[in-house]
Amino acid sequence: MRILAKDAAEAARDAPDTEVEAAGWVHRLRNMGGVNFIILRDRSGLLQLVLDEKPDITPESVIRVRGLPALNEKAPGGAELRVASLECISRAGGDLPYQVNADISRIGLEAILDNRTLSLRNPKIQSIFRVQAVIIEAFSAYLRSLDFTEIKTSKLIGSGTEGGTELFEVEYFDRKVYLAQSPQFYKQVLVASGLERVFEVAPAYRAEKHDTPRHLNEYVSMDVEMGFIDSEKDLIELEKGLLAAIFDEVKKKNRRDLEAWNASVPDPESVRRAPTISYAEALKIANGEARGKIFDINPEAERLLCEWSAREYRTDLVFVNEFPRRYRPFYTYPLDQGEGKPVSTMSFDALFRGLEITTGGRRQHDYGALLEALPRFGMTEESIAGYAVFKYGCPPHGGFAIGCERLTQKILGLANIKEASLFPRDRRRVEP
Amino acid sequence: MRILAKDAAEAARDAPDTEVEAAGWVHRLRNMGGVNFIILRDRSGLLQLVLDEKPDITPESVIRVRGLPALNEKAPGGAELRVASLECISRAGGDLPYQVNADISRIGLEAILDNRTLSLRNPKIQSIFRVQAVIIEAFSAYLRSLDFTEIKTSKLIGSGTEGGTELFEVEYFDRKVYLAQSPQFYKQVLVASGLERVFEVAPAYRAEKHDTPRHLNEYVSMDVEMGFIDSEKDLIELEKGLLAAIFDEVKKKNRRDLEAWNASVPDPESVRRAPTISYAEALKIANGEARGKIFDINPEAERLLCEWSAREYRTDLVFVNEFPRRYRPFYTYPLDQGEGKPVSTMSFDALFRGLEITTGGRRQHDYGALLEALPRFGMTEESIAGYAVFKYGCPPHGGFAIGCERLTQKILGLANIKEASLFPRDRRRVEP
Repeated sequence: MRILAKDAAEAARDAPDTEVEAAGWVHRLRNMGGVNFIILRDRSGLLQLVLDEKPDITPESVIRVRGLPALNEKAPGGAELRVASLECISRAGGDLPYQVNADISRIGLEAILDNRTLSLRNPKIQSIFRVQAVIIEAFSAYLRSLDFTEIKTSKLIGSGTEGGTELFEVEYFDRKVYLAQSPQFYKQVLVASGLERVFEVAPAYRAEKHDTPRHLNEYVSMDVEMGFIDSEKDLIELEKGLLAAIFDEVKKKNRRDLEAWNASVPDPESVRRAPTISYAEALKIANGEARGKIFDINPEAERLLCEWSAREYRTDLVFVNEFPRRYRPFYTYPLDQGEGKPVSTMSFDALFRGLEITTGGRRQHDYGALLEALPRFGMTEESIAGYAVFKYGCPPHGGFAIGCERLTQKILGLANIKEASLFPRDRRRVEP
Repeated sequence: MRILAKDAAEAARDAPDTEVEAAGWVHRLRNMGGVNFIILRDRSGLLQLVLDEKPDITPESVIRVRGLPALNEKAPGGAELRVASLECISRAGGDLPYQVNADISRIGLEAILDNRTLSLRNPKIQSIFRVQAVIIEAFSAYLRSLDFTEIKTSKLIGSGTEGGTELFEVEYFDRKVYLAQSPQFYKQVLVASGLERVFEVAPAYRAEKHDTPRHLNEYVSMDVEMGFIDSEKDLIELEKGLLAAIFDEVKKKNRRDLEAWNASVPDPESVRRAPTISYAEALKIANGEARGKIFDINPEAERLLCEWSAREYRTDLVFVNEFPRRYRPFYTYPLDQGEGKPVSTMSFDALFRGLEITTGGRRQHDYGALLEALPRFGMTEESIAGYAVFKYGCPPHGGFAIGCERLTQKILGLANIKEASLFPRDRRRVEP
């Protein structure tokens, strides 16, 4: 029976005289003091194999071995297998174009992405996606526990609701459609349908030309929408609970992966401590940190606000709310601040370790008010035709989206968001 | 504090003298024997409200009420609320273009889809998507319990690996890319990377022009891929366990939804009893059922085979394996049947209640053998460039995909697959 690398120590303790089978990839070949070793890689980790003779095998070949398990403090996982027989299942060519077991801190990002089908074999790189899988699992489980229904909406849309720029065009039979930037309209419609609470994890597309360490042209959007809220503050509370649950699960299930990146997740208490400051306050604070020159919540301001929050509140998270209307989409609910003041909105961003990971807010659920707002955004009633369903009853509601790759990036401290996408798409990269 | 419709009976039993709040949509207005009723709809179901005066309200308006809960056998859920105060949160226009509370069996599919943002408010229609959410949840949970890692792969591909037809073209900056028909290549690469076991739930695209009750141009594909298998039989065993787990969860969590459609899920024993028959046997059986004239496993044969299986094995499920090579993609693993026999493959389909819900099989993991197969499919090495990574070690592996909408359709007995898609896309329909 096959055992996994992670179970070798237990097998060595419980039944050292029973031969076991292991299978996986030849991660490393070694000869030390005349003894031959293979470090075998399987889905659970690394396992040291000890061989009497030098094996005729190449790195990355897939092998199956049989042997006796034995404890060895110096071996990865604290155990090794003394190999009695070795079978090569798939022999790797000796001309490996990319060194899988190399220290990735010494390889440039371009080389890692150009050789993506091989670089994904690196255990440290795989760690990123084990964490990502747990993020998605925990996101979904937490929302289900609060009676949210998972939805799957179309990514092909007849027109763009958030303005026509930055959309990828699709040839759809004899017409043009677009790749959805977000499930915004659909999730609002489904809240209004009576499902009340919905979430979706799905690809989203932005045809932005810039190439930065924080943008992808295709990303995984973790979307939430909820009915019967009073303001964005209800959503901030929801996101705090959600992030605390995600961090908790990652801490439990990704211990080794976090170690590989020398990373840690915030504790739940520090998430609860996260302050909420208005856009106006945020500008003041960022300017105080930077000694002036901050006119917008730009990437530098995001970084400064998180530094401030870490210092003043001992938390990696800060929420900024009440963004001016001009910075938010047409469907954002206005905040009544009385006469004479600039119009702001019931909106928020979540900043985590220097990066905006969430944009959200309460939405305008009154169709008449939605129409009134359109000219300010250079939009017409026709362009938001679907929203006319709000004429037929719609509860106050709002929601937000968490960028899955951004959250992954910031949990692990990755320099570039592309590292957090299995097959990232940018202006030049559509392969593999 | 707000209570949900489903909790009204408990509130009436436990604290009949405590006023509670309820909120939701005006599903129906009634006057019976001089008493005024509103049937209120919230995310949990329907709740009868009893009012002293005729309320000034329209169907589909969103309201909040306060009142005392009382048991009433004749009310939906066995309880009602005697309303003390009613607040209209969002008044619906009186010109409702689609009757939400109508019996949907009396409304044509086109009318339902043309009015999708309103028809989704119908409780019976919502049931479909509550079942679908549980299908996705159970699919993911079962695979995670077997150590599968959830992946999110790109839906924008530089070229089509399954042949260039039936792909939607995307304008991607200054070049053309395509919408992925499946994550086939990516899931194979990730198995080969050492993750070994992966799954994905994501949109998939087919630019097929035909309009049938079993096809969508955009659908949710539930994909599985697994390393270290011997043949497609390992995959069939996996799918049996997976389907039994899905049916079990749907039975537990969707009792009311199943009732709404007068539907039931197969019991686990009947899933385990499902026979596996070869393509050749299947043709013979289908011809026996049809008294000749079946030359392929076409939709009629799928229906006949399920009838046969229901009669002979008392199960709604049947697996057909060993498809001839010409019917399967280039990457399918050949089945060695000795000299002189036609070449078949380690492939299978799952047929459920008359419909193919799964295609799968073992894949060719030997790059040399993969190249040899290409001319037979009119393909060149260049067109499968990414698969060259198999030169560097790849375990025997295979997988399958379950069409999420097809499984939903067949669990509930829906006449058309479009009913099982929130916002279905066909040749003419890209809105809403």
